Amino acid sequence: MNGTGHGPGSPAFFPLLIKSLLTTPLQVAGDVEIVSDGVIRYSYRDLEDRLRRFGAGLARIGVGHGDVVAVMDWDSHRYFEAFFAVPMLGAVLHTVNVRLAPAQIAYTINHAEDDVIMVHADFLPLLAEVMPMVTRKVKLILMRDNPALEPDTDFQFVTSYDAMIAGAAGEFSFPEFDEHSRATTFYTTGTTGDPKAVAYSHRQLVIHTLGVMAGLGPMESSNRLHRGDTYMPMTPMFHVHAWGFPYVATLMGIRQVYPGRYVPANLLRLISEEGVTFTHCVPTIVAMLLDAPEADETDLSRLKMVIGGSSLPRGLAEAARARGINIYAGYGLSETCPVMTLADIDPGDEENIETRLKAGRPLPLVDVKVVDSEMIAQPDDGASSGEIVARAPWLTTEYVKNPLATADLWKGGYLHTGDVGHIDPDGILNVTDRIKDVIKTGGEWVSSLALESVASAIDGVTEAAAIGIPDPKWGERPMMLLVLATDAQPEQIIRDVRAALQSQISAGSLSKWAMPDEIRLIAALAKTSVGKIDKKRLRAQILQRDGN
Amino acid sequence: MNGTGHGPGSPAFFPLLIKSLLTTPLQVAGDVEIVSDGVIRYSYRDLEDRLRRFGAGLARIGVGHGDVVAVMDWDSHRYFEAFFAVPMLGAVLHTVNVRLAPAQIAYTINHAEDDVIMVHADFLPLLAEVMPMVTRKVKLILMRDNPALEPDTDFQFVTSYDAMIAGAAGEFSFPEFDEHSRATTFYTTGTTGDPKAVAYSHRQLVIHTLGVMAGLGPMESSNRLHRGDTYMPMTPMFHVHAWGFPYVATLMGIRQVYPGRYVPANLLRLISEEGVTFTHCVPTIVAMLLDAPEADETDLSRLKMVIGGSSLPRGLAEAARARGINIYAGYGLSETCPVMTLADIDPGDEENIETRLKAGRPLPLVDVKVVDSEMIAQPDDGASSGEIVARAPWLTTEYVKNPLATADLWKGGYLHTGDVGHIDPDGILNVTDRIKDVIKTGGEWVSSLALESVASAIDGVTEAAAIGIPDPKWGERPMMLLVLATDAQPEQIIRDVRAALQSQISAGSLSKWAMPDEIRLIAALAKTSVGKIDKKRLRAQILQRDGN
Repeated sequence: MNGTGHGPGSPAFFPLLIKSLLTTPLQVAGDVEIVSDGVIRYSYRDLEDRLRRFGAGLARIGVGHGDVVAVMDWDSHRYFEAFFAVPMLGAVLHTVNVRLAPAQIAYTINHAEDDVIMVHADFLPLLAEVMPMVTRKVKLILMRDNPALEPDTDFQFVTSYDAMIAGAAGEFSFPEFDEHSRATTFYTTGTTGDPKAVAYSHRQLVIHTLGVMAGLGPMESSNRLHRGDTYMPMTPMFHVHAWGFPYVATLMGIRQVYPGRYVPANLLRLISEEGVTFTHCVPTIVAMLLDAPEADETDLSRLKMVIGGSSLPRGLAEAARARGINIYAGYGLSETCPVMTLADIDPGDEENIETRLKAGRPLPLVDVKVVDSEMIAQPDDGASSGEIVARAPWLTTEYVKNPLATADLWKGGYLHTGDVGHIDPDGILNVTDRIKDVIKTGGEWVSSLALESVASAIDGVTEAAAIGIPDPKWGERPMMLLVLATDAQPEQIIRDVRAALQSQISAGSLSKWAMPDEIRLIAALAKTSVGKIDKKRLRAQILQRDGN
Repeated sequence: MNGTGHGPGSPAFFPLLIKSLLTTPLQVAGDVEIVSDGVIRYSYRDLEDRLRRFGAGLARIGVGHGDVVAVMDWDSHRYFEAFFAVPMLGAVLHTVNVRLAPAQIAYTINHAEDDVIMVHADFLPLLAEVMPMVTRKVKLILMRDNPALEPDTDFQFVTSYDAMIAGAAGEFSFPEFDEHSRATTFYTTGTTGDPKAVAYSHRQLVIHTLGVMAGLGPMESSNRLHRGDTYMPMTPMFHVHAWGFPYVATLMGIRQVYPGRYVPANLLRLISEEGVTFTHCVPTIVAMLLDAPEADETDLSRLKMVIGGSSLPRGLAEAARARGINIYAGYGLSETCPVMTLADIDPGDEENIETRLKAGRPLPLVDVKVVDSEMIAQPDDGASSGEIVARAPWLTTEYVKNPLATADLWKGGYLHTGDVGHIDPDGILNVTDRIKDVIKTGGEWVSSLALESVASAIDGVTEAAAIGIPDPKWGERPMMLLVLATDAQPEQIIRDVRAALQSQISAGSLSKWAMPDEIRLIAALAKTSVGKIDKKRLRAQILQRDGN
């Protein structure tokens, strides 16, 4: 007796397809609202109809299984619908990072083999710079907030988003196919070399969606996600599908708000007027939000906020908590779909900021561990450090068309995150550094994040970055770079930072090698296209400036 | 660009195997306790070691991929471990229904092709009746609560559970294999014909586990399951894997209590002493629990309780609510793994008993609808009735070795539940009857459950069953059978039931054809082996008694 009747050969087999995420919300949340700020409001019931028209429209211009449809848009209902309609056709959604340089965008369009580009009118000037470098024949579809406004452009469009939605769906229905079919692709932006493509299958996105619900829902405390929440992304939808939360919110059938272009005052207005209770973003966005003049008049006390992309600095977390935001960290990469862990705050631990800063507990099915260079797992003792590696049903299986990088990524059967961390005895992951950002001095590893965390908690410090500077004797020595608030007192702050670091060293939390030789003030920190501190560029700037 | 890199061929592919349910709890819940009442307490950390010894022990006696291991036990830690160790070996776990007649048990052992039977000493007398009818050569493994007690038996055992757990695990590790491999099998007990085998794959059980977590966790109100709960089954583990909750509790890493043999006073003691907060059972068990003399002294106000197996009678729900139990219905079948819907109680609706009685909202990915005989979906208008059919990733794909019954089950591409119901405009499922229990009178369908629900709410009525009696003029006419409490006044109760039915008829909630021609008192209602009212046998008894 064995299991031949259970697989894809059986007529009862249920493939895990993006379209299956819609069944439950269409039944239980027909009247629940989806808001695209300034453009449209409609219900889940309307969504079903719109997706059929969208799908029929794409099919009419020849989009079919395996074709690639790129999107260049703000975070809108159009993008949200493309998350579903494009993969549900069997096509691949390429979420274009509009913050890349034109040559890089052209590279991704060529590499992903895009057949169609859906572009918002606001990005036509960017596309005009990109297209001369595109070597493929692509069809263009125009998207705009106001269909009455014809854009001033020489581009020829095969159709517009509005025309597709206004068109008939007829007998159109989305097909069934293999759950391993590719659904989405996008590019990770290293600081050197060409962008690398990751891709996710229908199966991976569906299991990731269940995994996030099964991880966030059963949390015991107030940071859980539940059916009474209203969701709004503050991570761009081109960045790992806005961390997969639009799929999660949809499967839960909760109210969703899409903010369009990110303008702090407008995000704050939406949080207040639309009653947003759940969002996620990188630290930079929270900082922008808290700095906006409108922040003081906005009630943020109902807002739960997952922070990812880079680690949550203590100072920022404290500032957010002071404004009532239920802020906490999560952890994942472009390569991991992305969510792998979330800071699950135990009841009674709400006021403990430490818990909120940690990467947290793995989602169900996520096998995350910390290993040495021989792939030996380190003990969960809260101290033993190593590279974080993982297995889960939703990790990218490859860098597309890049077998060498893929082999590195999956060396030893685990996905290598390139991050350094340790695991507490209760299974909570702490991410301390990027491997390449660890400062190696006198045979010791010094965590740049630990240094930054101490510095960023000092009043007057807006941002902090610790980098390793080549040193003939020690290999590297730490340097601390600080961006100060406009009214800050530089000498006092540098003294405060040194004193805070010294107190951590005296307490044994930092090694004595960790004290930076120099603390230098700079006007701004170099950032990558997704808003992370670009240490590679920072190092290069400093070395060049110092004449090394 | 298509998706060839995502499937099982990739080294990064992550099969959905039972063993993957253990990764997260072993990391985050190492110290959390698993209690087997009266026998042992240990931690999740210990569980890992025990499973390796258990697996090594089974492998030593030759159990391998595709072999079938049957279990006959109370709800113990041994059964719990078998839920994992047997499928993790690639073997199939046959959960034997020990309430069946010996000939039926022998039928299931032969039909499932059992290779090994693990039997608790308490069931040796039963097995002695069974084995003469078993046509296969099976190896026996002895299980007992006290390893020092040698049972008085002629059976030869290849080993004992205790010897396996005491033995070495050595280098034993559980293998990887196809996620479509069969993991479990058991038998549904119709009231006629041979039992029918259903079976579940690893993939199905893993997705069901995620689905239940993703459905129960994000509920907004107090009936949700969360990481602070302590779980105890009150549905036998041979009945659809105790509805899959041992897998759910394990993946969540929460405290678990296994009660052994079901004795009401002991279940009540465990709820109190072990702080059980989440359980599930059929209505009969709640009634037993509430009737036990110890119930009055037990605090049940922290207990959440999912009711399934048959619909939750209003009177019982009210009695449970009066004792503080957070009771609510769920819906599923042996054929559906089993959970398909759960009564999700919206905030503010806690005191509305109606919400608790309904089958509730579908779990994520569950496509449940109500169709007419042509498979046309009926509107979600809270009134249009039809058969409930479903698709989900975790429904049994077949009745094993029974292609005719399988074809019936999956007619038209949906699993036919054999239940009648309707769906509210907000997507909430109401189950009104088994198709075969609907009373067809004068061209009208009368719901036997609706009649029973009215009658069971009358003081003094312990149980109620409405059945159809052949009638030359109307086809069938309803008869109501009542079991009364010992101190009840029969004439008064019959008058009360008639008055309550009449008031429903006057209000338009019941058709005028629904008033039973006769209300008859009987000593007890015939039940199936899983405690459901056996209407087929009841009808036969009544017709025979009345000389039809």
